[in-house]
Amino acid sequence: MTLPTSPVATVGPVKIVGTGLLGTSLGLALRGAGVAVQLTDASPSALALARDLGAGTPAGEEDPEPALVVVATPPDVAAGTVLAQLAAHPAAVVTDVASVKLRVASAVEADGGAAAARYVGSHPMAGRERSGPAAAHGDLFAGRPWVIVPGAHSGDDALVAVRNLAADVGAAPVTLGAEEHDDAVALVSHLPQVAASLVAARLQDAPPDALGLAGQGLRDVTRIAASDPQLWATILAGNAAPVARALRELRDDVDAVLEALETAADAGPSAPGSTGPLARLVADGNAGVSRIPGKHGGPPRRYGAVTVLIPDEPGALGRLFGDVGEAGINIEDLQLEHSAGQKVGLAVVSVVPSAVAPLEKELQERGWHLVVR
Amino acid sequence: MTLPTSPVATVGPVKIVGTGLLGTSLGLALRGAGVAVQLTDASPSALALARDLGAGTPAGEEDPEPALVVVATPPDVAAGTVLAQLAAHPAAVVTDVASVKLRVASAVEADGGAAAARYVGSHPMAGRERSGPAAAHGDLFAGRPWVIVPGAHSGDDALVAVRNLAADVGAAPVTLGAEEHDDAVALVSHLPQVAASLVAARLQDAPPDALGLAGQGLRDVTRIAASDPQLWATILAGNAAPVARALRELRDDVDAVLEALETAADAGPSAPGSTGPLARLVADGNAGVSRIPGKHGGPPRRYGAVTVLIPDEPGALGRLFGDVGEAGINIEDLQLEHSAGQKVGLAVVSVVPSAVAPLEKELQERGWHLVVR
Repeated sequence: MTLPTSPVATVGPVKIVGTGLLGTSLGLALRGAGVAVQLTDASPSALALARDLGAGTPAGEEDPEPALVVVATPPDVAAGTVLAQLAAHPAAVVTDVASVKLRVASAVEADGGAAAARYVGSHPMAGRERSGPAAAHGDLFAGRPWVIVPGAHSGDDALVAVRNLAADVGAAPVTLGAEEHDDAVALVSHLPQVAASLVAARLQDAPPDALGLAGQGLRDVTRIAASDPQLWATILAGNAAPVARALRELRDDVDAVLEALETAADAGPSAPGSTGPLARLVADGNAGVSRIPGKHGGPPRRYGAVTVLIPDEPGALGRLFGDVGEAGINIEDLQLEHSAGQKVGLAVVSVVPSAVAPLEKELQERGWHLVVR
Repeated sequence: MTLPTSPVATVGPVKIVGTGLLGTSLGLALRGAGVAVQLTDASPSALALARDLGAGTPAGEEDPEPALVVVATPPDVAAGTVLAQLAAHPAAVVTDVASVKLRVASAVEADGGAAAARYVGSHPMAGRERSGPAAAHGDLFAGRPWVIVPGAHSGDDALVAVRNLAADVGAAPVTLGAEEHDDAVALVSHLPQVAASLVAARLQDAPPDALGLAGQGLRDVTRIAASDPQLWATILAGNAAPVARALRELRDDVDAVLEALETAADAGPSAPGSTGPLARLVADGNAGVSRIPGKHGGPPRRYGAVTVLIPDEPGALGRLFGDVGEAGINIEDLQLEHSAGQKVGLAVVSVVPSAVAPLEKELQERGWHLVVR
């Protein structure tokens, strides 16, 4: 399977400071596109590994001046490193990949001077719990958003250079202000992480029988609770004010829910002031979740679901999707559900609504056992 | 594809009171197993629909006495209906399917008398947001837990009858006390629902650009926020005390997180008292989520993941799973990820760890583009 390629606009050399997951992946992506890459890292072994993986060449005294510097250090040293790189390379555009932007943007602005025109912040929204160069891959950014955060004094050349970088590694560039970005990630990334961890933390002392009743809802809500504690402590602390704002609003809602529950517990579930606020909470959640974009950034779409019983044997899912594919129907989304104590599973296949009936007919004809819910 | 069948132990007739989603599905399952079913419902149209779907026969004056009565009314009238059915059928075992058990169990115990020996509570953990007889299906309970909640005075005959019922409709019986059950569902079902709705509610007024950064984490955490407000208000209010207990503990954790964030916001992210509590939250969440059972109720297992780039065209997933199946490898779990603005998706295929390397090799040989994260 060959992905379509497009011409590369990034002018090298690109110097990457910090060869962790993001830095090394960036180096691999750029090398794959034929761009010269210089690497540095405080750790000689991380640097050697990135070099050996093919992410670039360790920076040396004789190197040509880089056209673009990407600071891919841990977020707590990003600001200082950006300032140092702006000073060390007076003709280069400098960007950073920290997941929180205001701190770095403010440091560059406070430093003053003409160098600020050469800085534009970035936040490639890519990567996972795994870190370090060994987990790096040139496709890390494929299809992911890459937020471009212009500084107060960023020049057009810098903006173009960073946008080209994002596009050249297969990412989808989107431009936001620093505070706008930090508020956004607080809401759509940091608050969900906190919520997942809060719910999962309640399970630590749960009786085993209680955990035995766990269904797909709990699994969905707590999936990202398996994240790295140190990494997330740094991220949350680095975006503390916006996360605190969002979390305070959530806590106000928690208090309203608690008041309604206490009314129901004391005066019965039909008492005034009990079900009303609870229904409002869930209705508000309905409204919120319907605003999350669908595939490819388009408006949210309601899909139809076809639920199929799957025997637990190799190839079963393969046969199912082979059959769906032969019907010429595209799978928009898929969830597998685990059963408690039974050797079957359920595959919930989401398709466009007009495809539901044809798909059901097709699958039933081929002997699949459908479940209507 | 034929599912294995086992002999049916339930002795009919079974009388089902309330032909909504659960009652009608139960009727369909029992009729499929050859058991005689009598139906009643306060709504003549719901009753007629259940009959027409094949769930049983509307109860009449000339009917033989039922051996087993299943109360499948809305939860707020379950207790009263159970008492009425115990009185109306002095030889029958009576069970109910309300998702909260203490209220009903207490009512039966308070009523006193020999009838209590004939009552055992049930909670089939099946069904979805859709309700009503039209959504019913005989396989609703397949592979799902069916909690059996003995009353204080339940006799052995009643316990056996209800366990047989659960097994005959394909469910996995598990026995818990009423308070134990209500605390369990508060923790593993109700609290996650509240958390998902709380996070989703914050999105109502979010700027569109913020929503454009939404990733898989937000989608996972808020998936169940699309639930029915009225239904959930009734469920939460009916289990108010246990849910309030769990939510209060969560709120205490929220306060600790807020304190750490406020320290970080005021004194910087490296200040004492900021990252420590945040790391502890995520670590506690790690511990909690690792206790959720894996497939088939076994201990949690760590799977390896292979991430594959999928072009957005019909049949692509089918080809992928055909290839996985031909490699003889079982797919343990699957997640599809949506990209922002790109016509590709990612399929994250979970397999047992020993299968990761062979699968990667197999897929690469067949031309699939793997992403390492």
